[in-house]
Order: sequence, then C-alpha cells, then structure tokens
Amino acid sequence: MPLKEKPAGRLISFEGSEGSGKSTQISLLAAHLQKLHKEVVTVREPGGTEIGEQIRNIIVHNSKGDEMCAETELLLFAAARAQLVREIIAPALVAGKFVLSDRFLDSSTVYQGVARNLADEPVAQINRFAVGNVMPDITVIIDVPTEVSLSRLQQRVTDLPDRMERENIDFYRKVREGYLILAKNMPERVILVDGTKSVTQVAKTIWEHVQLRLGI
Amino acid sequence: MPLKEKPAGRLISFEGSEGSGKSTQISLLAAHLQKLHKEVVTVREPGGTEIGEQIRNIIVHNSKGDEMCAETELLLFAAARAQLVREIIAPALVAGKFVLSDRFLDSSTVYQGVARNLADEPVAQINRFAVGNVMPDITVIIDVPTEVSLSRLQQRVTDLPDRMERENIDFYRKVREGYLILAKNMPERVILVDGTKSVTQVAKTIWEHVQLRLGI
Repeated sequence: MPLKEKPAGRLISFEGSEGSGKSTQISLLAAHLQKLHKEVVTVREPGGTEIGEQIRNIIVHNSKGDEMCAETELLLFAAARAQLVREIIAPALVAGKFVLSDRFLDSSTVYQGVARNLADEPVAQINRFAVGNVMPDITVIIDVPTEVSLSRLQQRVTDLPDRMERENIDFYRKVREGYLILAKNMPERVILVDGTKSVTQVAKTIWEHVQLRLGI
Repeated sequence: MPLKEKPAGRLISFEGSEGSGKSTQISLLAAHLQKLHKEVVTVREPGGTEIGEQIRNIIVHNSKGDEMCAETELLLFAAARAQLVREIIAPALVAGKFVLSDRFLDSSTVYQGVARNLADEPVAQINRFAVGNVMPDITVIIDVPTEVSLSRLQQRVTDLPDRMERENIDFYRKVREGYLILAKNMPERVILVDGTKSVTQVAKTIWEHVQLRLGI
C-alpha cells in the first residue's frame, strides 16, 4: 500500500553492528512508549512477515554461505523489506502506531553497499523500490567499536554461527565506518548514540532525542 | 563474475506464457546442438542453483500466495537470477558452452512489469543489476493465444496448482501482449515463433533462426 499522505504513526529504525545492543534498546523504547499509552509494533529485518521469515532462512542459514553472491543477498534483503513495508509497517503507520524496526534500508546501504562493495546507485535504487515512500522518521544508529561488538558477539551462545556472524573483522570495520558516514550525511534523520555507555544511559539518550524530535 | 569481454559461449533464453511449449523446445534445441558436438547447459528460472531453488520454493509454493506483493515477487525473481548468472551462466559462457535458459530477464519485464503494473524504470534497473552484463544472444519467444496456453495448462496433471497458474485470464492476456511488444521493440535479439504450429515445425523454425544468427 503506497502512503498518499504523511500517516499518523511514526517509524523509528535501529541500526548498528551486531552486538551493538539494538534489540535491548528497542524493548526499552517500546516499553517507554507503551507507558505513555502509545500503540507500538516491533519488527525485525530480514523477516517480520511469513514470507520475510522464509527469506530470512535462506539468507541466515544458507549452509553454503560463501556461495551467495552480494547481488543476491541485496535483492533478498530488499524482497523481505518490500513485503514487511506493505504488509505490516504501512498499515500500522496509517493506524497511527509507532513502528520500531530492528534494521531497515540503511542496513543494505552499509552491509551490501559499503562493506560488500556494491555500487552506491543500484543499492539506492533498489532500496527506494523496496520501501516505496515509507521512510523512517528517525533512525537510531548505536555505535560501538568493532572490537567491542565482536567480543559481545562471541559471548552469545549460538549453536550455529550464522552467515553474517562469520564475516571477518575488516568487514565489520567497514560496516561501522559506513554507519558513521551515514550519520554524518543525514543528521536530520539519524541519531548517533554511543553504545559503549550503560544500557540505561543509552536508553535515556535515545528517549531524549525521540521525545524532542517527535514532540511527544 | 562480471564478463570482461564477449565470451566464447552463447546464451539463448526462451520466453512465453505457461503452456507455450518452452521446455519441449529447449530439449529439442539442446539435442540438436549436442549432435553438432556443442556443450550445452540448460537452466530454468527461478531456480537453477541451490539458493535459486530455495527462492523458487518461496515464490511458487507460498501457501498464502495472494499476500505476496508484486515488489517482493520481482525482487525474489531478480535474486534467483543474480545467483544463476554468477554461479552457472557466466562461467559456462566463459567456457564456451551454449546456455539455454527457460525464462530470463524478459519474464520480469512482462510478468511483474506489464502484467502486474510495476513501473518500467525500476523493473529495468533491477533487471540490469541482476544480470550484470550477461544478456541473451538470442531470445526465443513462443507465442500462443491465451486460450490455447490456458487449455494446455489445464490438461497438465498437478497436485497443487501453483501460484502463477492460478492467475486469471486477463493477467495472461497482458503477459502475451507484453511479449508481443518486446518482440516488436527488440528484433535484433528476439525471435518470435508461432507456438500453435506442430512441435516439429516450431523446432525447425527455431533451429533455422539460431543457425542463421549464430552462424553455426
């Protein structure tokens, strides 16, 4: 569903390296908004719909991960996103809800574009096609040094390290750099938060920005 | 793998409505080429690689087919195609083989573009991104009236009619029309063949064109 006019709801996307603490902060912001009697929908990328979760399975658990080319990966993320936008996000925004998304189009710009060296222009075109006119009102980028996010990752108990988590340290450095460039280039949309602070401190900073920017 | 120079092999794509007889004609052309000691690789879309077949499953057997939006469908086809090009088609062309593909980028132009009313420009952009510089040397479009292709389809024994085959007759009319426009606009690449003729006659026509255009 294309949005014809600015909907009543608000979309807030969370971005950052793996291990930056996005999901914790999404839960805390959701709780804060709910206390103020706001309706909140949380989604994750890739996934968030039945079709999107099927796509996620291909991306994440692809047993021969090295064989998936960067172009395929970008298009699969975009496919999952296109479905999520039209099935969940746009209707929720029209209904006046707050949508908190764990990753959104900036992940493609940074992971497939910057870190996997796909050209900027096609990545931007495919991003635009996937989201239609549904852009985040606010994007929270939680920044942590690459070494910190990797060490947090290694502490997670996982049976199978998934495809994205097996990338090398150079890849994650490029990801971090990509997010920092994005924050610099889009200050009107992006909030850059220092993720090495305590969970409470990060949540407080995010809340102050959200409150200010959305006039809650 | 991007192709730096014109490879020794040749790519021939087959297009047309369901029930137009593409797979029969691909088998016959493959046999003909093999008799002349050419190495032939046949592939189908979506699919043709392990990742592509997983994507095909989502598209074709998606149990709630009506919920998949046109944008997602286009991006999934493109994802499968991007993988097929880089994993199978480009290496085969570099090795001097003939690649016969059951559908290729024109299917997206016609099915998602024309028949599902997605805008021309993003469909063309995504097509270009997916195939890189691997374009068919020849595209064989087998044309049959919509009523004929639908009646052929209904005679196929299938346990579960898949998503694409449940579309209505208007959709298939648009598909046919889309292919006819393509044939008119791209005579240097496309061979338009009358699929109501006998299998032998269609095969003969295709062979004559292929022989002439590729100088075999």
